[in-house]
Amino acid sequence: MTWPPLRDELRGVEPYGAPQLDVPVQLNVNENPYGPSAACIADIATAVAEASASLNRYPDREFTELRTGLAAYLNTDGGNDLTADQVWAANGSNEVMLQLLQAFGGPGRVAVSFAPTYSMYPEYARDSMTGWIAGRRREDFSFDLDHARDLLAEHRPSVVLLPSPNNPTGTALPHDVIGTLATLCAEHDGVLVIDEAYAEFRRSGTPSALELLGEHRNLVVTRTMSKAFALAGARLGYLAASTELCDALRVVRLPYHLSAVTQATASAALRHAPELLGNVALLREERDRTVAWLREQGHQVADSDANFALFGTFADRHAVWQGLLDRGVLIRETGPEGWLRVSIGTPEEMSAFRGALTATLEAAPPTETMANEERA
Amino acid sequence: MTWPPLRDELRGVEPYGAPQLDVPVQLNVNENPYGPSAACIADIATAVAEASASLNRYPDREFTELRTGLAAYLNTDGGNDLTADQVWAANGSNEVMLQLLQAFGGPGRVAVSFAPTYSMYPEYARDSMTGWIAGRRREDFSFDLDHARDLLAEHRPSVVLLPSPNNPTGTALPHDVIGTLATLCAEHDGVLVIDEAYAEFRRSGTPSALELLGEHRNLVVTRTMSKAFALAGARLGYLAASTELCDALRVVRLPYHLSAVTQATASAALRHAPELLGNVALLREERDRTVAWLREQGHQVADSDANFALFGTFADRHAVWQGLLDRGVLIRETGPEGWLRVSIGTPEEMSAFRGALTATLEAAPPTETMANEERA
Repeated sequence: MTWPPLRDELRGVEPYGAPQLDVPVQLNVNENPYGPSAACIADIATAVAEASASLNRYPDREFTELRTGLAAYLNTDGGNDLTADQVWAANGSNEVMLQLLQAFGGPGRVAVSFAPTYSMYPEYARDSMTGWIAGRRREDFSFDLDHARDLLAEHRPSVVLLPSPNNPTGTALPHDVIGTLATLCAEHDGVLVIDEAYAEFRRSGTPSALELLGEHRNLVVTRTMSKAFALAGARLGYLAASTELCDALRVVRLPYHLSAVTQATASAALRHAPELLGNVALLREERDRTVAWLREQGHQVADSDANFALFGTFADRHAVWQGLLDRGVLIRETGPEGWLRVSIGTPEEMSAFRGALTATLEAAPPTETMANEERA
Repeated sequence: MTWPPLRDELRGVEPYGAPQLDVPVQLNVNENPYGPSAACIADIATAVAEASASLNRYPDREFTELRTGLAAYLNTDGGNDLTADQVWAANGSNEVMLQLLQAFGGPGRVAVSFAPTYSMYPEYARDSMTGWIAGRRREDFSFDLDHARDLLAEHRPSVVLLPSPNNPTGTALPHDVIGTLATLCAEHDGVLVIDEAYAEFRRSGTPSALELLGEHRNLVVTRTMSKAFALAGARLGYLAASTELCDALRVVRLPYHLSAVTQATASAALRHAPELLGNVALLREERDRTVAWLREQGHQVADSDANFALFGTFADRHAVWQGLLDRGVLIRETGPEGWLRVSIGTPEEMSAFRGALTATLEAAPPTETMANEERA
């Protein structure tokens, strides 16, 4: 055996993660460019100092205060009278998803998603020994319900993982698709997970799956404080679902998985929701401006309900990515071949992005984009 | 299928965890009774406030500053020139252990420990789909190397999990046992994990497995900030091992698993190591006094290198546990039948424990203890 003695399927696997590069304009991991206000920082520090006085004690395993705060927040954004016991949280959506697959997936079971989608999903499946089936989306990234129906009938997945808005395309799911999928999953006791990490950025008129929780006991809606709440550094993912499903997760969570410091930090940030969501409104406007500008330049851009835009296509997307990086703007080389994803930053950052993209394409104009090739 | 659709082996499983009861004297989960000092709390609050200014950004995935601090600390307590890349950390030892089994265990592989021991080990195995074999210790809880040799030859475990001091018995492993086990494990490319959660409480003369790291590339020594560092609420477990083994864990860790707030909190607490370890000296003295007192009362007590004592035996240990609880003292009903475990608290708390135990046994003297039955 080679050393170290990793299990076979992990050999040669690269750890997940975008490059951590020190670049002036970071538009690569869909962070919120607006840091917490001085008032919010002071509140977090005070809350952590209070929690620190008893840091020698284990934290509340049930994190009841935080769950209460999260439920109250969700009830302002699509939730209908959700209570603390219908909410669960963990160290980032990563851990929430892993726990869902540990509980409802596992050996001999299958999880399904629809590509292109979030590239961590197969890792959660691998780590929980759940089989993994990737369906597909239509060419325009919209959801193909007929294809999904066939796939679900064939594989009877225990878990379906579906982001809305989708990452990296930004595409939100219509209500009727979510409802139909929940019903289809229920036929074989499957759980439907709608990953709403970017939900707060959805355009007006786009619904949240939270509204459907009362109708489907097998529906789970996940959220995160990393994006709209600008709290990526604090690692707080959460979900809303039936009390039964939340309770079931207690069997697979590691005891005391959420630290007292995390609980205090997240609860303090929740008290600043109005301020933080004010910045979301700015980002939605900047997103729409960015999409419009990219289209004016002749690029394809996926409709986006998120804080990023997927645009293309480029015969050599890596060259474009590198050209931007050389000009101090870091975006993400992800999604289908030929596409690039840019996170929405401040107006100044987006101005830098526009300038860098224009300069990159002028310096080395693509002889022929894939768009021209494919769609001529 | 019954609802919710948990996988079969999780059905009916109770979530792990001691009862969370509101009792004046809490001596049940081996917490450090001494909270951080005002200076330490202020330092943590300042560090978290600084980290909060960029909480909208993801944390350093490699947590280099924290690993550097942990390595420096370990070099004061048995480590030989350990560097940051020989240290790894996660949200509590729980997550460290799970990652070890996810990386080096898994389906078709086996992990071994020796009972009585920490009751979470089989859960880590279950959550990582690793087979689980429980060997045994001798009647006096000392380690039986001949038995271990047979078990390792038979099962060729990928991972051996062995606490030193052992929980719940408090028994430390001699160096020669650790060295021999590491050599035996190496013969079939197995990893030996020595869980030193309670190492700082060891009696003088008891070595740390850290001293052996240079000799065995398959040796992993885990530690935690929950006990000696009085930071149970902050959830910071860590390990020291070869750079190769630490690197391998990056494949199974969830991206950004350690929050910026956790990193800041733990780094701040490390700067207060001398103060916190001063309290450890007090606890070691109080532990030795408690063991001596229990023996004076005619109880059996396992030799302890930890911040708890296992004592017994009682024909009805639950009645004794309940008698203490009724008197405001919460201890733990764990370990082999007939034994109870008490964490070491402040002198005042141990006085309350002694009073409550005396009163309990006087109020309802056990007609016959198991000790009397078995050892007459």
